[in-house]
Amino acid sequence: MKSDIILLGHGSGGKLSHELLDDLIVPILSGIGQRDQNDAAVLTQQQGRLAFTTDSYVVDPIFFPGGSIGSLAIHGTINDLAMAAAMPIGISVGLIIEEGLAVSTLRTILEDMSAAAEKSGVRILTGDTKVVPRGKVDKIFINTSGIGVMEHDLDISGHNARVGDKILINGTIGDHGMAVMASREGLALDSDITSDSAPLNSLVADLIHGVGGQLHALRDPTRGGVATTLKEIAIQSEVEITLRENSLPVGSTVAAACSILGLDPLFVANEGKLLAFIAPEAAEQALMIMRSHEFGKRAAIIGEVTSTNKGKVRLQTTIGGLRAIEMLAGEQLPRIC
Amino acid sequence: MKSDIILLGHGSGGKLSHELLDDLIVPILSGIGQRDQNDAAVLTQQQGRLAFTTDSYVVDPIFFPGGSIGSLAIHGTINDLAMAAAMPIGISVGLIIEEGLAVSTLRTILEDMSAAAEKSGVRILTGDTKVVPRGKVDKIFINTSGIGVMEHDLDISGHNARVGDKILINGTIGDHGMAVMASREGLALDSDITSDSAPLNSLVADLIHGVGGQLHALRDPTRGGVATTLKEIAIQSEVEITLRENSLPVGSTVAAACSILGLDPLFVANEGKLLAFIAPEAAEQALMIMRSHEFGKRAAIIGEVTSTNKGKVRLQTTIGGLRAIEMLAGEQLPRIC
Repeated sequence: MKSDIILLGHGSGGKLSHELLDDLIVPILSGIGQRDQNDAAVLTQQQGRLAFTTDSYVVDPIFFPGGSIGSLAIHGTINDLAMAAAMPIGISVGLIIEEGLAVSTLRTILEDMSAAAEKSGVRILTGDTKVVPRGKVDKIFINTSGIGVMEHDLDISGHNARVGDKILINGTIGDHGMAVMASREGLALDSDITSDSAPLNSLVADLIHGVGGQLHALRDPTRGGVATTLKEIAIQSEVEITLRENSLPVGSTVAAACSILGLDPLFVANEGKLLAFIAPEAAEQALMIMRSHEFGKRAAIIGEVTSTNKGKVRLQTTIGGLRAIEMLAGEQLPRIC
Repeated sequence: MKSDIILLGHGSGGKLSHELLDDLIVPILSGIGQRDQNDAAVLTQQQGRLAFTTDSYVVDPIFFPGGSIGSLAIHGTINDLAMAAAMPIGISVGLIIEEGLAVSTLRTILEDMSAAAEKSGVRILTGDTKVVPRGKVDKIFINTSGIGVMEHDLDISGHNARVGDKILINGTIGDHGMAVMASREGLALDSDITSDSAPLNSLVADLIHGVGGQLHALRDPTRGGVATTLKEIAIQSEVEITLRENSLPVGSTVAAACSILGLDPLFVANEGKLLAFIAPEAAEQALMIMRSHEFGKRAAIIGEVTSTNKGKVRLQTTIGGLRAIEMLAGEQLPRIC
């Protein structure tokens, strides 16, 4: 790259655009090869139903403990496909960059994307870059879309939670949201909070392999947190969910930071967690599968589907009461992902 | 919608996000149904190779003669798939909205997207919405990604232009770029310039049906215009291209506006045009197919592939000279798409 910063011309489609592509983007995101200058990537015929998803990432700051906007964008789209019980086969990357961004910053973000994709076994297939004048976007926003393939006929969906199902989570809650908040606000904590951003495709593959049709629903509790996600499923599946507060895994530093900021970890975003609704007879097996996976060591059964009382979520508190859980009403943490 | 403007909470994932989805987005983009709250859309197994593409749209202004950021985002991704000789089967929509955008503005943009998709016979399958604080993005940016299916074994690509091929375009050049520029700069012209933004999937289907394997390469001359696009193909296919200036279709108002602003229409963006490289024996037939299509009435043969002099593009000027064409060097028209 001849320039140290991104110029408007890098988004022109002309000579500088080709230089950015040839000297920086293609060497790092190697899946976006020369062929991609043909507007679209071509994939061989796939066996099975397809899943298709999109997400834009606007996280602030763009680097935080445990990740960056780059790794987050790859993990997030992998996870959206995994939650549809689909194995990711390819990801697209749409970059919107503010004029003046340091090329070294862009390089680090692209390297994070490449490393995240490689570690997850997912290919980045195609991309697009736009540059807008200073002040028209904040540093960089990234869209990732993804295609996955479903090599099974299971109906794993938010409509399919059933009375009696146990609800499992693969670890502690609130880590991503509090890592971003602590880093944005410059909170001085005893120990750093690290984002849980992680790809969940292989954990989902293990669950499907292990318990198959006894896995009824999967969802990743991102924006809005565990509370909002469970409320969605309670509405979609027309059931009532009961959570046990003393079963919820919360890291001690996250709990402390939430307390300082007056936040409830149940509503804080996660980026490496999934909620699984499992038939009761398979719940212990699913828990063991989770705990033996790199991203499930602190997995727990946090509640169950208790009745067909449509759309209700109740929290059984540590002191023995029952609290109704509603969706997050306003904006708790803007630009968390 | 209870609010007249978009609030940060509409991007929270919580109650306001669900209200935006249920009251505005889903009713207009009906393909994004309730099921979509399952993170990803599910498609049946497809017969044929797949094409996958992504594009972000940051056009300024968001409404211009002949379209809006909404219709442009749909047409653009349809066209990227069509240029890979794939028929679009589904599109994703990622919205990044500035806090404070009028809900009525968003409604119009979504209606434009819906109408463009419907007119093209393409389904919008899945979406994502982020809201960022005022000043962190300019009004609205939209990413669209798309999946297409190739129901043939043809190799239609920018690597496949061959010596002797005729180069066809389906109409006048520079309309989109000059419509956006004129509207941005408030140019007073004798008559309005209208963007050529249009979906080219059915025109491409007609060409494939009519001339099949004699269609060697397709590319839409968007950012960087016809000149940059031809230069790309000359490099990829390792050939020399010769254009005839007096064959290039340019509208008179576009020519006048280019002249005022000191721009060359060969470098100005189009959003409803394609360049087709056709074996010489099929060129007249392809021209007739184009001219009988709604989006090809002013189609023309504008040049040919003249030798294996790698990566050269030459313009035979009206006065008889030969001018070498290079890629656009800097940024001619920022935020044109």
